[in-house]
Amino acid sequence: MATPTCSPLNQVTFGRGFLADRARLVREVVIPHQWSALNDRLPGAERSGTIHNFQVAAGEKAGEFYGLWFQDSDLAKWIEAASHRLATHPDVALDAELDRLIDTIAKAQLPDGYLDTYIQLVEPEKRWANLHEYHELYIAGHFIEAGVAHFEATGKRTLLEVVCKLADLIERTFGSAPGQIAGYCGHEEIELALLKLARVTGESRYSRQAAWFINQRGAEPNYFEAEIARLKINRLPESFHHDRWAYLQAHAPVRQQREPVGHAVRALYLYTAMADLARENADAELADSCRHLWDRIEKAHLYVTGGIGAEWMGEKFAEPYDLPNDRAYAESCAGLALIFFARRMLDLELDGRYADVLERTLYNNVLAGMALDGKTFFYVNPLEVRPAEVRRRYDHRHVKTQRVPWFGCACCPPNIARTLTSLARYTHSVFDDGIALHLFTASEIRFSVGRTRVHLEVKTDYPWDGKVVVRVTPGSPLNFALRLRQPGWCREASVRLNGEVVPCTNKAGYLMLLREWQSGDTVVLDFALPVFRLRANPRVHHNRGKVALQRGPIVYCLEEIDNGPGLNRLAIPSDAVLHPRFKPNLLGGVGVIEAAVQRVAVPGEELYSTTSPTSEATQLRAIPYALWANRGEGEMLVWINEC
Amino acid sequence: MATPTCSPLNQVTFGRGFLADRARLVREVVIPHQWSALNDRLPGAERSGTIHNFQVAAGEKAGEFYGLWFQDSDLAKWIEAASHRLATHPDVALDAELDRLIDTIAKAQLPDGYLDTYIQLVEPEKRWANLHEYHELYIAGHFIEAGVAHFEATGKRTLLEVVCKLADLIERTFGSAPGQIAGYCGHEEIELALLKLARVTGESRYSRQAAWFINQRGAEPNYFEAEIARLKINRLPESFHHDRWAYLQAHAPVRQQREPVGHAVRALYLYTAMADLARENADAELADSCRHLWDRIEKAHLYVTGGIGAEWMGEKFAEPYDLPNDRAYAESCAGLALIFFARRMLDLELDGRYADVLERTLYNNVLAGMALDGKTFFYVNPLEVRPAEVRRRYDHRHVKTQRVPWFGCACCPPNIARTLTSLARYTHSVFDDGIALHLFTASEIRFSVGRTRVHLEVKTDYPWDGKVVVRVTPGSPLNFALRLRQPGWCREASVRLNGEVVPCTNKAGYLMLLREWQSGDTVVLDFALPVFRLRANPRVHHNRGKVALQRGPIVYCLEEIDNGPGLNRLAIPSDAVLHPRFKPNLLGGVGVIEAAVQRVAVPGEELYSTTSPTSEATQLRAIPYALWANRGEGEMLVWINEC
Repeated sequence: MATPTCSPLNQVTFGRGFLADRARLVREVVIPHQWSALNDRLPGAERSGTIHNFQVAAGEKAGEFYGLWFQDSDLAKWIEAASHRLATHPDVALDAELDRLIDTIAKAQLPDGYLDTYIQLVEPEKRWANLHEYHELYIAGHFIEAGVAHFEATGKRTLLEVVCKLADLIERTFGSAPGQIAGYCGHEEIELALLKLARVTGESRYSRQAAWFINQRGAEPNYFEAEIARLKINRLPESFHHDRWAYLQAHAPVRQQREPVGHAVRALYLYTAMADLARENADAELADSCRHLWDRIEKAHLYVTGGIGAEWMGEKFAEPYDLPNDRAYAESCAGLALIFFARRMLDLELDGRYADVLERTLYNNVLAGMALDGKTFFYVNPLEVRPAEVRRRYDHRHVKTQRVPWFGCACCPPNIARTLTSLARYTHSVFDDGIALHLFTASEIRFSVGRTRVHLEVKTDYPWDGKVVVRVTPGSPLNFALRLRQPGWCREASVRLNGEVVPCTNKAGYLMLLREWQSGDTVVLDFALPVFRLRANPRVHHNRGKVALQRGPIVYCLEEIDNGPGLNRLAIPSDAVLHPRFKPNLLGGVGVIEAAVQRVAVPGEELYSTTSPTSEATQLRAIPYALWANRGEGEMLVWINEC
Repeated sequence: MATPTCSPLNQVTFGRGFLADRARLVREVVIPHQWSALNDRLPGAERSGTIHNFQVAAGEKAGEFYGLWFQDSDLAKWIEAASHRLATHPDVALDAELDRLIDTIAKAQLPDGYLDTYIQLVEPEKRWANLHEYHELYIAGHFIEAGVAHFEATGKRTLLEVVCKLADLIERTFGSAPGQIAGYCGHEEIELALLKLARVTGESRYSRQAAWFINQRGAEPNYFEAEIARLKINRLPESFHHDRWAYLQAHAPVRQQREPVGHAVRALYLYTAMADLARENADAELADSCRHLWDRIEKAHLYVTGGIGAEWMGEKFAEPYDLPNDRAYAESCAGLALIFFARRMLDLELDGRYADVLERTLYNNVLAGMALDGKTFFYVNPLEVRPAEVRRRYDHRHVKTQRVPWFGCACCPPNIARTLTSLARYTHSVFDDGIALHLFTASEIRFSVGRTRVHLEVKTDYPWDGKVVVRVTPGSPLNFALRLRQPGWCREASVRLNGEVVPCTNKAGYLMLLREWQSGDTVVLDFALPVFRLRANPRVHHNRGKVALQRGPIVYCLEEIDNGPGLNRLAIPSDAVLHPRFKPNLLGGVGVIEAAVQRVAVPGEELYSTTSPTSEATQLRAIPYALWANRGEGEMLVWINEC
């Protein structure tokens, strides 16, 4: 079993900060809000039916299944989020609520371990019959993650036993032996979950089962071809139309996959499991596939906000460099999945490029998914919005201009919740020889080097200020490596140790201080935080002649409320000075960018003319992309014309 | 009855020229090609089934209906085209073929006059039952147009009698009297057709019926609301989803309609009939609606190629100024319909703005619909194509990168054919006091002023050259007005009469010479033909920072075969000289535009960077948009970056 890669959640506490405030919001507002949604007690929200379905399956009430066939997973993700909260903030009422809920789930589970309320209540004869469309193993994976989180948070084995029984059934059912099903799930998730379960239970057979699923995927003869022949399905769903099995990453064995394809969340859940397995088994070939896939995501498929999935129909990867801003899918769940993959790649090899994307995606794409009040959510995260077009164009029908309380397909809100409540897992890595800090946020981290405990206190106003103070307090003087990430966007960073400038080499994106640490040693890291104009590779035709503004990890956008309508008529002169300013009373306290720019005048009514456009001077204000759509409906724009 | 507005087809002959060569192509290649398609004798084309259906309905063969429910209209449009050909180029074999075909159609017609092979063979109980989806009156309208054209070309009443019987049935069936159906067709066409029939037969009741259909449209209570209630239809087709009855222009009475909405072809067929009726009845209110609708099309909905219909789902008008280039629908039929509307507006009031759009749409959007060999066609006419994205993106699935021999829904090819074979109708207008020339192409026009015949000979290499020579030969010396259009794009024009410069006032886009004409009088019109950079109104965000190239009426585009891949990486410096050159061996002899431009270099693999782009010098060649995709598959681009 590979060693843990970070401190347990209860060994990390957060102070105030841009990220930590969102994590607190999840604990205090989002978790009870989502509990109301799952129980259908949220006025104005789409009906969920999730708890209802479990109560019916458990025999606690009469009724019929309601909702989408895979929504049991919404509940599993919520349990995971609630468990994370219990780990850091004990709460007797929530603990008891979870116990009652787990009791219902245990009652709903069939004697052989099977658990899927849709199949149990609606199509029991379809068990494991349609793996490419139904999501039984996906749901199982989320329950396994929930069971692991609940056990780690509370020490209780109630849900862990339920999911082990389910995992045992899966292990008996799927495999290459006679009588077993040689198939795998259309929506990856079980693989990464079984690897987690193996680690917490010490049962390596779960990780062998994960490896079997991963290696079987896309192998010839293709399982899904046989499956649709058996089901007499003539026509795959429209989402599959360009891709066929590439839609679910089963077009080739995973070790031959080099280009990310198909449904983005599925793809990234697979890659996450592949990276985890590569580390677990020191599997160089699999690690190499992961590096190739990562490289292509980073170089050809990543929105500047860190979102992925540019094709709205099927929530898919598009052609390399085809990154439309107004029709972006960039699903919140896909951003989260990319963060999971980045984390596993950091575990595989400490390289700042993974943390750079993790930070970009978290601060921008993922945080945009949740309103400042924690009560409404985005599923789709476009980079350019004109409300009138959104309402009218068919190819914008996936876009919402305002966050909503819940979704018919509500995968994103609880996924954001479970990730932000486990924020500590993404801020640092613990190694045998020390620690690495990936994200900078006011926090205290307790960890061990050998048998010695170390307490690390981080103070910073990042991302608004580039100064990060790290105070080191080992139980006794101790030799270890403190690695501080120098973000990819950062050109200038200074490091002082106890007031003295110390030279630090940047190795793969990390500045390393290796010494015998004394109690009270203080490192001050100082990043220059200029405003950058980012330009897209010219292969991205959508962004030709445009720039995106970034300061630190924050990508900015324009909103109509600050800049008036017709955002595409604004243009930033190439020599304009871009002023970062902190606005304590705006959006809860936020850094903005202001500049003197030009606005192209509308010369008249003619649609086409030979006259050159004229411009007038105006002021531009950009706010962090993550905070758009918190002040009513209006236009929004990330990529701004340059002149 | 209003007077005819142009000379009969057989009174106009064409020499060689960009437009006339295409008309000849239709006569010689397209008409027999489409006859093969309608008879299912075209290898590699989608099956039509059209003739087959009529033969089955006539009892000439056994079989079942095949194809789309409205495709009888494809045959009607083909008959119209073939009749136009007979009018100008007598052909015994074609004449006999038409006689045989009309005999079949007459046998297929039911005794009461009803004619619609789909309803007759598949759902006879649905006659007139579902006017919003079925196209019975639309088909009837096309047969009426065919009957009129066949009669005008041949003097034979065979098809005219069939369509009069059909029109009589319609007149008995639809109206406000008790027992009549107070409804109208979901796809407009019957209105403009009945107005034509009234004119050729002298029966004003047909024009009253057209007026009833026009005025009833959108009146309260809405007929379609009652219809879907009666049919128990809960959900309208997806194309209607944003618009509901606006999709088919029945959201309000037509006299209250100000903004073009819904399916573009339907809308323009309606507006065409409205303009015709306004002239017929001197109906100022209706004319005012037409002017408003025209104005909004011209100022907010027109592609620079003259295409309309920017929303692919539903082939509809989009938001004002929302004119995406890559997802443009700009259907060939919608361009043709706009030409019909422009012609009727010219009849209503001689104003060059109507002829400007007519010329723009014909030379660019419409001619692009047909390959140089006359054997393949576009239905959709985008302004920007990247084949890899077209294949992969769902929101490009309506786009084809190469023309095809036929379509499952084959409205466009015969519509192009019937319009180009009647080209003479769009080149000029005849008035009581003289003539106006709208389009310039080598031709001879015979017309009358009072009782005196006049022969007009036009010689020109327009659109490649701006010189137009008009030789006037009246039967005897005669006072009349010769009006020569000065195109809206033309800033400088000189007029010489018999070698002397004469001052001419431009009145509403026309230069008028009013005098007593002598045999041999010669007018030489000379337009300066510089290359223009057109800029879109800044409200069109899709075209910000871009220019389109136009010379004369020709809009240009870039093709990958001339300019290499990555057309969006090219940029025209604001001071670049744009050289028009004629290439006799390219695409059958064509004017191109060449310029020294910049190509943005791809700096490396990074997707986002802070470095400014670098450029290298390169040569650009632009060809007429109408001729794109005649040299294999590749990228295409109309709106070019400027730097």
